[in-house]
Amino acid sequence: MSSAWGNKVKISVFGESHGSAIGVVLDGAPAGLKLDMDELMLNMGRRAPGRDKAATQRKEADIPNIISGVLNGTTTGAPICCVIENTNKRSGDYGNLLTKPRPGHADYTGYVRYNGFSDIRGGGHFSGRLTAPIVFAGSICRQALKQNGIEIASHIYSIADIYDEPFEPVEIGHDLINRLNEKSFPLIDTDKEDKMRSVIENARLSGDSVGGIIECCAVGVKPGLGDPMFFGAENVISSVMFGVPAVKGIEFGAGFDMTKMRGSKSNDPFKYENGRVITTTNNNGGILGGITTGMPIIFRAAIKPTPSISQPQSTVDLQSGENATIEIIGRHDPCIASRASVVIESALALALINL
Amino acid sequence: MSSAWGNKVKISVFGESHGSAIGVVLDGAPAGLKLDMDELMLNMGRRAPGRDKAATQRKEADIPNIISGVLNGTTTGAPICCVIENTNKRSGDYGNLLTKPRPGHADYTGYVRYNGFSDIRGGGHFSGRLTAPIVFAGSICRQALKQNGIEIASHIYSIADIYDEPFEPVEIGHDLINRLNEKSFPLIDTDKEDKMRSVIENARLSGDSVGGIIECCAVGVKPGLGDPMFFGAENVISSVMFGVPAVKGIEFGAGFDMTKMRGSKSNDPFKYENGRVITTTNNNGGILGGITTGMPIIFRAAIKPTPSISQPQSTVDLQSGENATIEIIGRHDPCIASRASVVIESALALALINL
Amino acid sequence: MSSAWGNKVKISVFGESHGSAIGVVLDGAPAGLKLDMDELMLNMGRRAPGRDKAATQRKEADIPNIISGVLNGTTTGAPICCVIENTNKRSGDYGNLLTKPRPGHADYTGYVRYNGFSDIRGGGHFSGRLTAPIVFAGSICRQALKQNGIEIASHIYSIADIYDEPFEPVEIGHDLINRLNEKSFPLIDTDKEDKMRSVIENARLSGDSVGGIIECCAVGVKPGLGDPMFFGAENVISSVMFGVPAVKGIEFGAGFDMTKMRGSKSNDPFKYENGRVITTTNNNGGILGGITTGMPIIFRAAIKPTPSISQPQSTVDLQSGENATIEIIGRHDPCIASRASVVIESALALALINL
Amino acid sequence: MSSAWGNKVKISVFGESHGSAIGVVLDGAPAGLKLDMDELMLNMGRRAPGRDKAATQRKEADIPNIISGVLNGTTTGAPICCVIENTNKRSGDYGNLLTKPRPGHADYTGYVRYNGFSDIRGGGHFSGRLTAPIVFAGSICRQALKQNGIEIASHIYSIADIYDEPFEPVEIGHDLINRLNEKSFPLIDTDKEDKMRSVIENARLSGDSVGGIIECCAVGVKPGLGDPMFFGAENVISSVMFGVPAVKGIEFGAGFDMTKMRGSKSNDPFKYENGRVITTTNNNGGILGGITTGMPIIFRAAIKPTPSISQPQSTVDLQSGENATIEIIGRHDPCIASRASVVIESALALALINL
Repeated sequence: MSSAWGNKVKISVFGESHGSAIGVVLDGAPAGLKLDMDELMLNMGRRAPGRDKAATQRKEADIPNIISGVLNGTTTGAPICCVIENTNKRSGDYGNLLTKPRPGHADYTGYVRYNGFSDIRGGGHFSGRLTAPIVFAGSICRQALKQNGIEIASHIYSIADIYDEPFEPVEIGHDLINRLNEKSFPLIDTDKEDKMRSVIENARLSGDSVGGIIECCAVGVKPGLGDPMFFGAENVISSVMFGVPAVKGIEFGAGFDMTKMRGSKSNDPFKYENGRVITTTNNNGGILGGITTGMPIIFRAAIKPTPSISQPQSTVDLQSGENATIEIIGRHDPCIASRASVVIESALALALINL
Repeated sequence: MSSAWGNKVKISVFGESHGSAIGVVLDGAPAGLKLDMDELMLNMGRRAPGRDKAATQRKEADIPNIISGVLNGTTTGAPICCVIENTNKRSGDYGNLLTKPRPGHADYTGYVRYNGFSDIRGGGHFSGRLTAPIVFAGSICRQALKQNGIEIASHIYSIADIYDEPFEPVEIGHDLINRLNEKSFPLIDTDKEDKMRSVIENARLSGDSVGGIIECCAVGVKPGLGDPMFFGAENVISSVMFGVPAVKGIEFGAGFDMTKMRGSKSNDPFKYENGRVITTTNNNGGILGGITTGMPIIFRAAIKPTPSISQPQSTVDLQSGENATIEIIGRHDPCIASRASVVIESALALALINL
Repeated sequence: MSSAWGNKVKISVFGESHGSAIGVVLDGAPAGLKLDMDELMLNMGRRAPGRDKAATQRKEADIPNIISGVLNGTTTGAPICCVIENTNKRSGDYGNLLTKPRPGHADYTGYVRYNGFSDIRGGGHFSGRLTAPIVFAGSICRQALKQNGIEIASHIYSIADIYDEPFEPVEIGHDLINRLNEKSFPLIDTDKEDKMRSVIENARLSGDSVGGIIECCAVGVKPGLGDPMFFGAENVISSVMFGVPAVKGIEFGAGFDMTKMRGSKSNDPFKYENGRVITTTNNNGGILGGITTGMPIIFRAAIKPTPSISQPQSTVDLQSGENATIEIIGRHDPCIASRASVVIESALALALINL
Repeated sequence: MSSAWGNKVKISVFGESHGSAIGVVLDGAPAGLKLDMDELMLNMGRRAPGRDKAATQRKEADIPNIISGVLNGTTTGAPICCVIENTNKRSGDYGNLLTKPRPGHADYTGYVRYNGFSDIRGGGHFSGRLTAPIVFAGSICRQALKQNGIEIASHIYSIADIYDEPFEPVEIGHDLINRLNEKSFPLIDTDKEDKMRSVIENARLSGDSVGGIIECCAVGVKPGLGDPMFFGAENVISSVMFGVPAVKGIEFGAGFDMTKMRGSKSNDPFKYENGRVITTTNNNGGILGGITTGMPIIFRAAIKPTPSISQPQSTVDLQSGENATIEIIGRHDPCIASRASVVIESALALALINL
């Protein structure tokens, strides 16, 4: 595994879905940051499942136990370790013998990579539950960024083929940001919530799942951040973003649609506004040549359908060496995309604090 | 800048568009690799402009002068430095005073990032010309990978709204790979070439440019490569890929389209075939949980329209502090996407040798 | 802080002397390693203070609570997090206002580096107590190395001006290694123990402290490990070794004494022995050009006198801005060097597993 | 190989002793630095052999050809590549078959590490000649540091058993620094020069070589630099310093001698002086807990005797598999330590710019 990441500010994520606890060490965060624990717990809650039918039924309190690096509510500059107990893990004995890898999961690849020793219970270290430590660490970075005028928000851009309105790329208002930051199911056009939830519920009822796209932004980022060619803003953001389970694509600004534009349209014209250089469009998503322009950073991350479904699926039996069928009994999370917003925002915070 | 990249095998790219030379140091490549210089020069040529009207008219010989790390045609294990002379640079005196940053380019962000000292002549270190050293270094890695049975290919998936056929995700034949590897303008369905070239030529005639998508694959990759969460195959590939100028998005396997599938469709079923575990579909693009599955690695990179166009554009005058118009005189490259294939392939080779 | 280290196998150390707990995440250790917990606890015990008068009187159980990465006693390949509770921390309220920095400690430099926010209680994250997580992580690496035939040992080379016998550089027997590995106060010539303890006790009685040198070796290391110029064996070993508090120097093989030899003496002649290339002397400490020779790796680390002493010392009062005197009341550890052996061995294990 | 190093400012060293050229890429150096080429050439000259009998007779012009990253004499922020031609390489045909590895050299370990493919001509990439690129890159960093008030100097602390005066640890005057910076054979007590040269000449006449110690300092370093535990000042300095060929030990401040002090002596008392916190002694060499104190950084590096000697030595014949004797004909460099000063200074500059 290499669950450690970062250059200036580093994280080291640990834990398994059905181990005693999960957590993270955040190393290099600035000293003297007074933590807003309410905001941090709000973010932890936005990620946590069990709030409504759109999520898995496993209920976790997700209480972060900060065991180092914070004194009297303020960061000391020393590594911050947070441990989150797994309160809801199944208590019985576990075997750890992988016989039938679940399609779409990392069961098989983890089995090959770790010579059959990876913890397969509930996905082990590959579980979506490991996004909780990312939210914890990212939330702290986010508070540090906020002190420098940088704010982050995201919304559910799509669930299956139901689309929200996109961010207005040139200017994203603080009211919208604040509103999105409070929601577990953040949408620009809240009228889309019923349709999206209905699509998710339909999938759930048929033992199936759906995917979606998260659109995320950062405003207040100064121009001039990023170290091209290979530690530019896009490199760093994508490098951490593909650490979020189920992310299969990322695009900045107009992204893939930009390939259908002509340069005369896709080039963002410069203009002075109140003495500041801005661009009048933002097809480049706030990044040119890997360096921030000062315009909103905007990107979208594609989240595949939750691989856990309740239908019979074709697989192999690694013990018998024969083809087989697997059927997973029990409730499942039909759409991890629907609560990935705060995870994507947190991963962005980790990236930005490293620029 | 941080034009150095890599963990096991590292590159350090240097040079400017109108400096004396460009080049790269490749550090950590395996010793004892007998270089196939014909293949290497074929790749250099596939990238080089000036072959046809689809490219810029600047003709560069792009002769790689290997000055270290290779003895008697074989790698020694010491760093390989390659210097490529800029034979075609303009010889006159240069000022270096950025007055009007070109929209879509890194002129403005480089100016801010480097306090006004960046070399702006022809884009300086941000120039697309800097992809030549990437092709050089990647080609050597590619030869090392080939010895381990790994082959890489790509094709022009789209130019503007003209699409080639996609790769067949489960099995990509060696004949196709070999055919694509020889082409500057690689297509699966060669009937699309005329249409694509016509779109490019139309853009050029109106002083404009177009973008496109490169689809790239690697076959023969063993299962079990990649170090999740943050040094998984997708993290590492995207981290280097966004170092290629003009890349604005990347998606693996079915990518963004996967978000519209249901899990029962997107999960790739496992199956034994000739004693080997395969998947009967490959929506995950050969990567599950950041680890290779043994199926073809498939991804697509979005290349924005060449920002250099010959039309008047709105910008600012950084000296006078006023809004302004810029018009670039001279021939331009109307579609860098059309010769990005070998660059994307080379960057993939650099990523794979680091897994 | 940057308490994270490592390239292939990474550690991230966290905790403060008087916080709730200390610990470490070990990321990238091999999967399938069956942990020998008795040996691991033996190492934890060798480091722990409170065993005899040569150490501080603070008694810590130092029970490592493994909360991830190990299942049924075997490593899974996922990050291993270990938390060690601070059972003996003072329970009263703490201020955190640094007024008088202790000479020789990191109080002042930490104050400057972390803008006055570092946890100063008992040294905070700079405390020698933080060597416990290093021993934990290093002990696991050591068990992995042992499976590959590599064994590590060390002894107290000197305390003040009392010297033990040095390692015989060309061949270090398994009996000696095994004997040293069991001791808290490891010596080649055990007759020196009384003298050394007497020097330490004398210092303690006068409220003072003494330093010493640890000599450490690794045998069974294959030739050909290390990546010069900058990730050679000496670079990597020294890079981690200076993370051990109080280390002020390191020398390999004959080290500083080698500067007084002539080349005809210091050059280690090669010779075939049982079909294997050996050197008949080992002034280079098993490393040539940054790469292991196959001979024992031998180095010495200088450990300065424990900075905590019970005598009045001159310092400054950072609040009043005036010169001041500080006198620390209470028992102190008069010689951290005397129990640094297992820490140095553990740090070496971390280095070797990264070569 | 891993001849790339650095976190913020990176170097990638390339070339072989008898290849066409050697050089370095310096990536991440600040933009806008006006290079003082005279000072840079002075440093190149201080390293270059052939000036007197104390050095090897190979005469190299060592002209650095800067091919990128500098425009109009000023750094642009882009990677700086410097190529230094090997003007004096032997022109005949070369075999590359290692039969008899030279004792004390990396011939044998390089052979094993690179499977017999390493370039053995003149030591290849392991040659002391590769310190020229380090001096080039370090000299640029040094000029950037100087703008921030940091100055570096060193002197030959010892050759064999002849010792110069040590630096006065608490205050090192600018006059001394300036004087040392101009010398190829820098000494505090210049009366020692004759004795040292005589020792070197005696060794040379008997076909032998001697070692020595370089003492190096940096003054003007602000307090508060360094990221403990593992990227503290000592870790970073030692990590790059062991990349200098022939370095076998490093000690900071009083170093190994500190182990013989009592804490009451070795602890450096704090004191206010002109409103600034200083220490009245500097046994810790300007570093406490891995963080700079603001006092002079002082360390010593042990340089082993040049392994190239002209006497017959015992070795093995790797082709025949039998013990053998090797005798190297021709003039040799009897004391690389005597011109290592500027290399050590340059490596320190690389370290400091990364803190």
